[in-house]
Amino acid sequence: MQILVLNSGSSSIKFQLFTMPEAKVICSGLVERIGLDNAKINYKTASQDIEKIEAIPTHKEGLQLIASYLLDTTTGVIQSATEIEVVGHRVVHGGSTFAATVEINKEVKEKIDKLAALAPLHNPANLQGILVSEEIFSEARQVAVFDTAFHQTMPVEAYKYAIANSFLEDNNIRAYGFHGTSHKYVSEKAIEFLGKQKTKIITIHLGNGCSMTAVKDGRSIEHSLGFAPMNGLIMGTRCGDIDPAVIFYMVKSLGYSLDEVNSLLQKESGMLGLTGFSDLRDIESEAEKGNKDCQSALAMNAYRIKKFIGSYAAIMNGLDAIVFTAGIGENSDTMRTLVCKDLEFMGIELDSHKNSIRTKEMRSIEIPSSKVKILVIPTNEELEIAKQSYELLA
Amino acid sequence: MQILVLNSGSSSIKFQLFTMPEAKVICSGLVERIGLDNAKINYKTASQDIEKIEAIPTHKEGLQLIASYLLDTTTGVIQSATEIEVVGHRVVHGGSTFAATVEINKEVKEKIDKLAALAPLHNPANLQGILVSEEIFSEARQVAVFDTAFHQTMPVEAYKYAIANSFLEDNNIRAYGFHGTSHKYVSEKAIEFLGKQKTKIITIHLGNGCSMTAVKDGRSIEHSLGFAPMNGLIMGTRCGDIDPAVIFYMVKSLGYSLDEVNSLLQKESGMLGLTGFSDLRDIESEAEKGNKDCQSALAMNAYRIKKFIGSYAAIMNGLDAIVFTAGIGENSDTMRTLVCKDLEFMGIELDSHKNSIRTKEMRSIEIPSSKVKILVIPTNEELEIAKQSYELLA
Repeated sequence: MQILVLNSGSSSIKFQLFTMPEAKVICSGLVERIGLDNAKINYKTASQDIEKIEAIPTHKEGLQLIASYLLDTTTGVIQSATEIEVVGHRVVHGGSTFAATVEINKEVKEKIDKLAALAPLHNPANLQGILVSEEIFSEARQVAVFDTAFHQTMPVEAYKYAIANSFLEDNNIRAYGFHGTSHKYVSEKAIEFLGKQKTKIITIHLGNGCSMTAVKDGRSIEHSLGFAPMNGLIMGTRCGDIDPAVIFYMVKSLGYSLDEVNSLLQKESGMLGLTGFSDLRDIESEAEKGNKDCQSALAMNAYRIKKFIGSYAAIMNGLDAIVFTAGIGENSDTMRTLVCKDLEFMGIELDSHKNSIRTKEMRSIEIPSSKVKILVIPTNEELEIAKQSYELLA
Repeated sequence: MQILVLNSGSSSIKFQLFTMPEAKVICSGLVERIGLDNAKINYKTASQDIEKIEAIPTHKEGLQLIASYLLDTTTGVIQSATEIEVVGHRVVHGGSTFAATVEINKEVKEKIDKLAALAPLHNPANLQGILVSEEIFSEARQVAVFDTAFHQTMPVEAYKYAIANSFLEDNNIRAYGFHGTSHKYVSEKAIEFLGKQKTKIITIHLGNGCSMTAVKDGRSIEHSLGFAPMNGLIMGTRCGDIDPAVIFYMVKSLGYSLDEVNSLLQKESGMLGLTGFSDLRDIESEAEKGNKDCQSALAMNAYRIKKFIGSYAAIMNGLDAIVFTAGIGENSDTMRTLVCKDLEFMGIELDSHKNSIRTKEMRSIEIPSSKVKILVIPTNEELEIAKQSYELLA
């Protein structure tokens, strides 16, 4: 079965074509800067890697362009659009409505639209991708895979805020959690590795967005992102946890508008605010050269992850494994070293040699006596979307 | 040495007169509703407990009234105001300026005044109390003991937020921590009890305000309240930790003004928002009767404390003792049970019988095999202020 996975952002479409259940990648790529004259398409197959700049006015032209590459006599990998039986869409916010992957129909689209109130930057773009895909791959069945769904198993103690109950009941204000597709994917790999279903695992997703999940017996029971993907860990440009009193102070005493504060906390904070750089590779290389701000920001970042590890071990009353994943989690041995340092008490003991080896493979990097396994597991959200789509429809 | 301890709030003055170093309480009491016609004074000595309603227009009349009771031929405990050699004042916010208790002079008063920007509800009242006390006890030396001072030992990873550095450098936005006098007092008692200085202790102050401190080797290294006393644990009417995105959503999408949101989060949230009650005794009794909201709120409250225990154990890389203190911490065996449940992994094992015994004494309530000591230590902020004032000046 050919499954096309689409991740539509506000001005981009990421795509990947799989043969399932073999999980074989046929082609993949990215359309970006949609709406601009110098939009860009990247298209990759086993034998080709094409990059082209051209005007792509809307998502529709973007997806048409992707389809034309898929079908083209020289670049193509399929003969007819109908060969694609399923299109799996990433949808950011499923609210409390969607606890699982669903086939898309009119009602599902209406609900995704309604949930745009909770994810104004993401859901409209995701829905746009669905609508265009229904036109272009009109024979295919369309599936929605939600970033929030994995976290719908969180207990009330984890998702509810200590504010008047009406805000949950009437306004759906609660913690939803994000990056669920990634946390689900790597936690299942970890469970497989540990060889038992009854497990206490902490998954640490460190990419441009960062989040952690406590996964008990395969279910998300606690997560660091909340109502929106803003709090918890220190991210590239987002502040993560902060005393809400700071927001009131910035407006009342420093004279910022609320919009300015929002933008400051989301786009000019995190590692960028602390160092002037948002890319961890730059920050690590500056820190090595002696840049004090960069050294301090790395320490702060790791310190906060450490606090979440302790907190999640406490609510699970134990810990079998921690899992590092996503760009930073998979590639930064520095960050892993800082996080795992001085956690022997919790049974976490890193093997510094194993940690330093760079590979794209899943690996275990603790010393033999470490009670807790330390795993590095490359995430693959696209494959997870294809897998879930396949499981739903095959 | 006779030391008068004053804690001046916006419309109240708490007072206690000690003989130091014996730590003997000579008298104590409270003036409340200052500014109203039905203001109230309560005045207690070993043999008397007087309560009187009368108009008390300002703090000056309030403190004059206290002085008149102290000196009165029937109620009095001193012959002359000059017998009071030292007045120790509680001051809420010492910012980064005051890391220790100081004798008050002109410069100190100016600094306390300047710090009112960070504590607009507290510092002006504290300063008012100092000014009036200087008039009435003009021969006494005046001392300021700051709620924030104990936490000035926190490392940068603990006090700094992940926002642009300029907010710390230019605007002093950082975590300060509060209830420091209480955390210091009970952690010192715990260290004495453990019989060693090298200790890893978590102090849990559960009163109307709630906070936790990680105390390593006698020093505060992490604390749950931040820039203002609003975040962290769930409190009587304050929300504690919440995704800051909720604030933006309440204003942008629900139409509240920022002031309304501030008031909602500080005065109508926490246990009150979750249950309709702010007093834990009511909530516990309702929960026992089967009130689901109350049961859930207690579970949420304990769950959050548990997360902080794990987090603080992680950053200390170990744990010798946890300490419950203040109204709820000292008196609610229910809350202690909920907090300590399912934490065997961290070495915390409660003795349910010892936990259920009510006494005003310091006690240890873990089972013999518990690696971590579970202590209940009555706090005494007034005595701590007297002690620190004495140590500074004696």
